[in-house]
Amino acid sequence: MMKTIDLNCDMGESFGAYTMGSDEEILPYISSANIACGFHAGDPSTMRKTVRLAIHHDVAIGAHPGLPDLVGFGRRNMDISLEEAYDLVAYQVGALWGVVQAEGGRLRHVKAHGSLYNMATTHVALAEAIAQAVYDIDPNLVLFGLAGGALLDAGENVGLKTASEVFADRTYQEDGTLTSRRLENALIEDAEQAAQQVIRMIGERKVHTLQGKDVDILAETVCIHGDGPHALAFAKNVREKIEGAGIHVQT
Amino acid sequence: MMKTIDLNCDMGESFGAYTMGSDEEILPYISSANIACGFHAGDPSTMRKTVRLAIHHDVAIGAHPGLPDLVGFGRRNMDISLEEAYDLVAYQVGALWGVVQAEGGRLRHVKAHGSLYNMATTHVALAEAIAQAVYDIDPNLVLFGLAGGALLDAGENVGLKTASEVFADRTYQEDGTLTSRRLENALIEDAEQAAQQVIRMIGERKVHTLQGKDVDILAETVCIHGDGPHALAFAKNVREKIEGAGIHVQT
Amino acid sequence: MMKTIDLNCDMGESFGAYTMGSDEEILPYISSANIACGFHAGDPSTMRKTVRLAIHHDVAIGAHPGLPDLVGFGRRNMDISLEEAYDLVAYQVGALWGVVQAEGGRLRHVKAHGSLYNMATTHVALAEAIAQAVYDIDPNLVLFGLAGGALLDAGENVGLKTASEVFADRTYQEDGTLTSRRLENALIEDAEQAAQQVIRMIGERKVHTLQGKDVDILAETVCIHGDGPHALAFAKNVREKIEGAGIHVQT
Amino acid sequence: MMKTIDLNCDMGESFGAYTMGSDEEILPYISSANIACGFHAGDPSTMRKTVRLAIHHDVAIGAHPGLPDLVGFGRRNMDISLEEAYDLVAYQVGALWGVVQAEGGRLRHVKAHGSLYNMATTHVALAEAIAQAVYDIDPNLVLFGLAGGALLDAGENVGLKTASEVFADRTYQEDGTLTSRRLENALIEDAEQAAQQVIRMIGERKVHTLQGKDVDILAETVCIHGDGPHALAFAKNVREKIEGAGIHVQT
Repeated sequence: MMKTIDLNCDMGESFGAYTMGSDEEILPYISSANIACGFHAGDPSTMRKTVRLAIHHDVAIGAHPGLPDLVGFGRRNMDISLEEAYDLVAYQVGALWGVVQAEGGRLRHVKAHGSLYNMATTHVALAEAIAQAVYDIDPNLVLFGLAGGALLDAGENVGLKTASEVFADRTYQEDGTLTSRRLENALIEDAEQAAQQVIRMIGERKVHTLQGKDVDILAETVCIHGDGPHALAFAKNVREKIEGAGIHVQT
Repeated sequence: MMKTIDLNCDMGESFGAYTMGSDEEILPYISSANIACGFHAGDPSTMRKTVRLAIHHDVAIGAHPGLPDLVGFGRRNMDISLEEAYDLVAYQVGALWGVVQAEGGRLRHVKAHGSLYNMATTHVALAEAIAQAVYDIDPNLVLFGLAGGALLDAGENVGLKTASEVFADRTYQEDGTLTSRRLENALIEDAEQAAQQVIRMIGERKVHTLQGKDVDILAETVCIHGDGPHALAFAKNVREKIEGAGIHVQT
Repeated sequence: MMKTIDLNCDMGESFGAYTMGSDEEILPYISSANIACGFHAGDPSTMRKTVRLAIHHDVAIGAHPGLPDLVGFGRRNMDISLEEAYDLVAYQVGALWGVVQAEGGRLRHVKAHGSLYNMATTHVALAEAIAQAVYDIDPNLVLFGLAGGALLDAGENVGLKTASEVFADRTYQEDGTLTSRRLENALIEDAEQAAQQVIRMIGERKVHTLQGKDVDILAETVCIHGDGPHALAFAKNVREKIEGAGIHVQT
Repeated sequence: MMKTIDLNCDMGESFGAYTMGSDEEILPYISSANIACGFHAGDPSTMRKTVRLAIHHDVAIGAHPGLPDLVGFGRRNMDISLEEAYDLVAYQVGALWGVVQAEGGRLRHVKAHGSLYNMATTHVALAEAIAQAVYDIDPNLVLFGLAGGALLDAGENVGLKTASEVFADRTYQEDGTLTSRRLENALIEDAEQAAQQVIRMIGERKVHTLQGKDVDILAETVCIHGDGPHALAFAKNVREKIEGAGIHVQT
């Protein structure tokens, strides 16, 4: 039985005068921060503040590159080419690297955002382009990807360390995919239920699907969400329950 | 008498479907390429193509960060804060670093673009913010700045190597500054005259000003321009004349 | 004594997934909404929702064009040309007109935003460019401008109706200008005091300045702010006090 | 037999310092200009210059709204919602209306750009959202759409005048659609052949497809392209041939 787990959260998604998320409040409860890089969210000053906070809380820093769609928050699928995918990952990971370097920190991982992440879960060539870009920038970076998805395979094939990601507050389908946000019951709003799902994923490597069947799942990093009114309480609760179950939170 | 000089040119200023400059044609004649980083010009794919070309031609690669003003091409002064200046330099230099890393190259220098460069020539605190950002990202980077301007001082003070920049095709005022583009006679359009100005700057450390007086100037890198219909002929001519005068072109 | 006053508020400043302001809550208390047009804030969908809300609350609709600086929220001075100023006003006013037209409403006024407004208060040629653009689009539009500033003169000279704007929550200098936000005491945070300042401006055409002197001021429209945690209480309080003083709120 | 035809061309696709197309040279040969509105190309100042040129050449002015994807030139499919489609059309058509109004011209038609046009050719609900937005802004506007495509149906159903568009320099498939640009033989590069295709479309309402079969087609407006090195010669040649065949070019 696995005794440690990484807790990650998307961060640095404010933009200019616009605030999103409760980064400072949530940082004490997580071990990895995925920091937006200016394409779907974030700007250079927000990135620097977020990097500084992550360093202060001793939380691992990851780049969170997204599609070039600020008004759509990177959540609208776009028909980008493989070369464009490679290039926008290289650009955004580099941009965050610059900011991290300026703050004296270290870039540890990369997690694609929103539609880029989702598209790369099933689109093998896109996943390979992303993984190759990450590897070419720095082969020591850890690539996050949806448990069972194409990003993990692509990362392993190219020679990267990967982290199989599960979601605390999302329900699963019997094919192992997440229930689409467009469907009912996509979200788990009860923190207790979310924590139990995570604990079982870690302890038994199983998740109970909406169809009633258990399916196998590998949880190496757990995503919790930092926006919404209950994000902080949720993060705190999930962490406490996980630790209460004897699982240590760390990268 | 100095026997070597660096020839630099702004590059990678195309954007998406828009083409600017004749990068591929001019690269054989220069020793340093200042590559736009996406704020005033450039995009991830343009950056990667340009980096690849620079590596192919064995030309040193520099970041060319600008103000966040694509429609104004970074040529309109903006009242950014010192923190914003620091952050946008860290972001853009990092972004280019990511692309360079992906291509297996090395980032050598940083030259601010347009209004950011011009404002930092006289605005000491702004110059310091830029220099500090460059140093914090990588203390081995070389900072370019206008001969006699505040960026060079700021770079030296923070501990960076600097390169004092002169312009082949611009006229000078007796206070050592460039003649504003808004005035007549700002540009030298005759390649022969431009080459002679450069050769004298290198050989005698003097420039003949529009007011008729000679003033002292230090030329460590010479900027030639890559856009305009005669850019290629101009670059070729200046290089040949410089080499004909026994000066070796190198970083 | 003037018996009516217009209460205006900046609205529609959300952007994509980012929320700003409490537009729906504040609309019942104002008579004019200045709606962001996508350059400093706002996006097409936010604009349409805001226009629909304004129509629902029978609040007059105005365009609120700003500088092309989303990350800076249009609050950083930019050295734009007069032609660029004219053009970006024509574009943004037109964009809102399109949305208003689609919703079956009517565009009544134009108020420049942030740095565009501030620069045009003292920069006569800039004020003239803005006023000319507004006039050329529709000579029946009302141009808002700071009481005593160049925008009002420019608007009158070109043949527009104008509205002399005062601020409920800002202090004044003895030259009639607003105290800079960079100085202490720039803001009036007490709603009662703000309401009394407004009532006196309307009733006596005077404002008490930070220097202790009264100066003349013409209040035709009063700006209240829609962001910040106390915006709603403030708006409600100011309106009640004004009405309690026998002044009718209307355009 | 139809004796008149409209010749349209995409225009105003320059952006800031970037130039695209040969608008001024091509305007004498066309009857309708589709002017970019700032999302995929164009900026307020480019729009105003282009509108002024179109008025000078007595060419009808149309809005050419695109997806919010400047770096992709609006040519990458994006998964926008129907509401977003409606809103971005209202915004962009309005923006051009503002500029046209400022120049004393008249907005006559709307043609969606690139991926927005292509997606709406087969995506009925998207076509309806676009047509509804155009109608709601001004029911007298003419909606352009691919011959046989969903935009024309949507336009007619909502009560708009429409113009069935054919392409001079594109080949057709036997289902009446354009050959994808990703396939060989998508483009007709010979101006003579292009002109003959157009003349036959007008005279016989037929087009010869790549599969060798003739199919029915209705040509009310013919698109010619304004970019590329041979655009001017092509435009001139097509116009002369059409007129030589006794067909009058007009809206």
